[in-house]
Amino acid sequence: MKDQKVPEETIRRLPRYLRALLFVQQRGIESLPSHELAEYVQLNPTQIRKDLSHFGAFGKRGTGYNVETLTKTIRDILKLNEPQKTVLVGAGRLGTAIASFPGFERYGFDITAIYDNSMSKIGKKIGNTIIKSSDALSDIKENKIKLAIIATPPEVAQETVTVLVENGITGVLNLSSCYLKVPKEVKVRTIDLAMELIMLPYYT
Amino acid sequence: MKDQKVPEETIRRLPRYLRALLFVQQRGIESLPSHELAEYVQLNPTQIRKDLSHFGAFGKRGTGYNVETLTKTIRDILKLNEPQKTVLVGAGRLGTAIASFPGFERYGFDITAIYDNSMSKIGKKIGNTIIKSSDALSDIKENKIKLAIIATPPEVAQETVTVLVENGITGVLNLSSCYLKVPKEVKVRTIDLAMELIMLPYYT
Repeated sequence: MKDQKVPEETIRRLPRYLRALLFVQQRGIESLPSHELAEYVQLNPTQIRKDLSHFGAFGKRGTGYNVETLTKTIRDILKLNEPQKTVLVGAGRLGTAIASFPGFERYGFDITAIYDNSMSKIGKKIGNTIIKSSDALSDIKENKIKLAIIATPPEVAQETVTVLVENGITGVLNLSSCYLKVPKEVKVRTIDLAMELIMLPYYT
Repeated sequence: MKDQKVPEETIRRLPRYLRALLFVQQRGIESLPSHELAEYVQLNPTQIRKDLSHFGAFGKRGTGYNVETLTKTIRDILKLNEPQKTVLVGAGRLGTAIASFPGFERYGFDITAIYDNSMSKIGKKIGNTIIKSSDALSDIKENKIKLAIIATPPEVAQETVTVLVENGITGVLNLSSCYLKVPKEVKVRTIDLAMELIMLPYYT
């Protein structure tokens, strides 16, 4: 399903399309014209039609894109059609919020294990998942898990990612607001909430 | 300080530059060559030199950009040189994590009030800030606050933003993972952590 000719820029926009599609799907909408999709994703309809034409999705004139078909196509391309096992490291306030976040499940992510190095947290549960000692991170290798979320304090984020990568992790969502050094083949996405807030004063 | 000729795309990259600059500043580094800055922000040095030349910042050959000067310039452009009063609505797990987030302070944001509609939370404190009833949101107008963070459940996010905008809010960081309808003059940045995780399987 992955089409090598799809440009990187289009791939990067697919999550935004998927999010809008799931949103309208929940509301029972079966087809969506490109100009309505445009409002959700804040792109112009021409860009959307061009992006989606790369993988053979054409909106019917007058009715628009079939929501179910397009959702499935994008999930296939992004490899989201099978559950993605993910571990979480750091069970502080942000980690706890993350572990209980309903959004992950909706997109097929399954937080299978939570790790922390604090004795006061190890053994406790977040939802149904027991917090394990960070010393047990080698479990990841045995369970062939590829994705991790880092919600540790910045001081231990680098050592955490190093251990994770040694144990086979190749994709990291980094919420530690710290730069991480990883081998080239490992993909890191860093989210710093302050960086998102930072743009607002300029526009307001 | 705001230069009308600076392209929008450059403005959007400024937070990444600022983040890298603060990071190296904390480590006592006084000047930074463009190729090193490039590693932090993951852009090519040519792009960086072009971006930064828009506001007269030129790296000296052999030594690079003056970290302190460049930091101040970017802060000025992004209007971050005076404290930005911000309110938080939603004191659940994510809201609590946000309220205690050290990153906001570093960039000059001051969370001056927290609101929630749950009787079990109203009157309690997060850090030094008392959680107030959402019925008291009109305080915002009196205090001329322009920025808000929404960390409510998605079901009440739209009504929350409507009340916020009625009370003078013009910039919103939306963590509710719900689309929000606002007047054109209001800027909303929506962060859905699941959307950040979603790109990783494609690359791993």
